[in-house]
Amino acid sequence: MFLTVTLNLALDVTYRVPRLRAHESHRITDVTERPGGKGLNVARVLAALGHPVTVTGLAGGPTGAHVRALLAAGAGPAAAGAAARAPVTDALVDVAGNTRRTIAVVDGSTGDTTQLNEAGPEITAEEWAAFLDTYAALLTGTGTGTSTDPAEGAAPVRAVALCGSLPPGVPVGAYAELVRAAHAAGVPVLLDTSGEPLARGVAARPDLVKPNAEELTRLTGATEPLRAADDARRRGAHAVVASLGAAGLLAVTADGTWRAAPPRHVPGNPTGAGDSAVAGLLSGLAEGLDWPARLARAVALSAATVAAPVAGEFDTAVHAETLPRIEITSGRAAARDGA
Amino acid sequence: MFLTVTLNLALDVTYRVPRLRAHESHRITDVTERPGGKGLNVARVLAALGHPVTVTGLAGGPTGAHVRALLAAGAGPAAAGAAARAPVTDALVDVAGNTRRTIAVVDGSTGDTTQLNEAGPEITAEEWAAFLDTYAALLTGTGTGTSTDPAEGAAPVRAVALCGSLPPGVPVGAYAELVRAAHAAGVPVLLDTSGEPLARGVAARPDLVKPNAEELTRLTGATEPLRAADDARRRGAHAVVASLGAAGLLAVTADGTWRAAPPRHVPGNPTGAGDSAVAGLLSGLAEGLDWPARLARAVALSAATVAAPVAGEFDTAVHAETLPRIEITSGRAAARDGA
Repeated sequence: MFLTVTLNLALDVTYRVPRLRAHESHRITDVTERPGGKGLNVARVLAALGHPVTVTGLAGGPTGAHVRALLAAGAGPAAAGAAARAPVTDALVDVAGNTRRTIAVVDGSTGDTTQLNEAGPEITAEEWAAFLDTYAALLTGTGTGTSTDPAEGAAPVRAVALCGSLPPGVPVGAYAELVRAAHAAGVPVLLDTSGEPLARGVAARPDLVKPNAEELTRLTGATEPLRAADDARRRGAHAVVASLGAAGLLAVTADGTWRAAPPRHVPGNPTGAGDSAVAGLLSGLAEGLDWPARLARAVALSAATVAAPVAGEFDTAVHAETLPRIEITSGRAAARDGA
Repeated sequence: MFLTVTLNLALDVTYRVPRLRAHESHRITDVTERPGGKGLNVARVLAALGHPVTVTGLAGGPTGAHVRALLAAGAGPAAAGAAARAPVTDALVDVAGNTRRTIAVVDGSTGDTTQLNEAGPEITAEEWAAFLDTYAALLTGTGTGTSTDPAEGAAPVRAVALCGSLPPGVPVGAYAELVRAAHAAGVPVLLDTSGEPLARGVAARPDLVKPNAEELTRLTGATEPLRAADDARRRGAHAVVASLGAAGLLAVTADGTWRAAPPRHVPGNPTGAGDSAVAGLLSGLAEGLDWPARLARAVALSAATVAAPVAGEFDTAVHAETLPRIEITSGRAAARDGA
C-alpha cells in the first residue's frame, strides 16, 4: 500500500453564487463539500487507480469528524464507480483543535474563484509526538487504521507522500524529520510542499520533490527551471519533478532528464492537478514503469483533472485519450528549450 | 419562560481577512463561530436579561450538531458573566439535512462585510409534521428540552417569538399555522420575518409584528412608515413595531402610537440589533412594563448591540447609559414627523 501524510487536513467547501460582489450579501445557490488537503487528494486518485492507500495526518473538532465521515462514505464499496476502486484506510491522528475549512466561492458570471482559507488548528507538542509515533508504526507495518479491507492492515508501505502546508504549532523542520523516519524504515519518500518546510525537507534528502516553477525559484533563487532543479538536487533531493503548469513536467533525476507535455491546452480548473501528478508518479513507481512512462501518466492525470467538472476529480475519458499522446523529450538540451 | 422558534437555524462564521479582493486567494487571520438564526439571537439576549428561554426549530447534520454543542456550552452555568444569566433550553427538532452556515467576511482594511448565506436544508413533510407536534407540546407545557435547569421544563410559556426565514420545503404558510397554534394555547405571539411568510403570518393575526421599514413597504406597498403600519394592522397584526434603523422604533398599537429614538447615532455593526429589540419587547411584556418603557428598553438594547465588538452581543454599559436617555414621543403627529 501507499501512505500519504496530510498534516493540514481540510474540509473543502465550494459555494456557487450568481455574481460575487465584495461587501454585499449573497445567497448561495449550490454547496459542495469534500475531504481536502493535498495528501487526501493524492490518496483519492491512487485509490481510483486501484492502489490501496492509507491516509494519516492530523484531524480534530467537528470539522475533522465531518471530513472523516465523508472519507469513510467515499472510500466504502458503495461509492459511485467503486468497481475498480481500492480501499482508503483512515489512520488520521486526533487533535483537540478544529480542522480548517477552505471556502472556494465560484462566481457564476465569470467562472472565477475567490478562495478563503482557514489556517488550521494549533497543534500541541504532545499531539505532534503522538503523530510521530503513529507515523513510525505505519512505516514499519505495525500501525493500524480503520480500513474498509482488513487485509490491508499490515501491508508493507511501497512509498510515502508528504503533502501540503503545516498547521500552526508543527515544527518547521517537520518534513525533514518525516523524510528521515521513512529512510530509516527503508520506504521511498516523495515531498510536495513549499517555502521553509520544503527547504528543510529537501536537506533531509527525499527521493523525489515535486515543486511548481514558482516554489522551485523560491527554494533556489534560480528562475530557469532546469537550473533551479539542478540546484534543488544539489541541496539534497535525489530527483526533482517540477510542474510547469500547462506546459507539463520537467524531471531531473540520476537516470536522466525529461520533459513531458500534454498534446494541447486543456481548459478547466487546475485545482488538484498537481496532486493527481503526484499520484501518477507514485502509481507508476509501484507498477515498475520507467521514468518516461511515469511522467506520461502524471501529465495525463493532471490534464484529466483540469478537465473534470468537479475540482480534484479526474475525467477517465480525457485520461485514456491523452495518455498515448503525451510528448516526452529526453536530455538536457530539450528540457532547456521546452521550459 | 419564553419560547423562540428558529426554523432556519445557522452556524454563523465570521472570517477576518486583511483585505478582500474578488477572485483572489486569502488566508484568514481570525475565525469565530456562534449559534445563529434570529430566534437564537433573541434567546441569547433574553437569557442575558435573566429570562429563562426555550429554543425550538429545526437542526440537522454535522453543522446542526455543532450549533447545538455551542449552544449547550454557551448556555451552561460556566459561561462568561453567567451570574445573572438564565438557562437556555434546547428543544430543537432533528432533521436529516445539514443546518446552513452563514459566512461573514470582514475586510480589515475597510471594516466592510461580505456575506455568504447557505439556503438551509430541504425539510421533508414528515420533519415538518414532527416539528408541529413538538411546538404544540411546548406551548401547552407538555414538551421537554435539554434544560440546564430541570425546574424550567414545565414552566408555562409567557410568549413565543417566531423569527427569521423558512428553509426549503417548509410551507410558505408555516408562520400562519404557528400563530394559530399559539393562539389556541392562549400564548401571545410575536412574528419577525419578511416577504410572503410575513404576509401569510400577518393574516393569522399575531399579537405583534416587528418588520423593518423595507419589509413593511414590501408587505403593504406604502412607503410612509405610519401609513404602512396602519395597513399592516388592517391586514391582521394587533400591534406593529417597525424598526427604522438608526432612527429607532415606531409602535402602532391598540393602546396608542409612539416613536422611540436613541439620543445619538451609535456607530458599529447593526447585525442582531433587530433581534435585541425583539428580546427587549418580550422581556418588557413579561415584566409588566407599559409600551413606552418596553420601547425604550428595545431601542437601548439595539444601540448596545450595535456598539458591541462582537456581532449579536450587547454592551451592558451602553445599555445602562442609553436607557434613561431614549426619547419617547407619543401620538400620531409626532410619529409621522419623526419617521
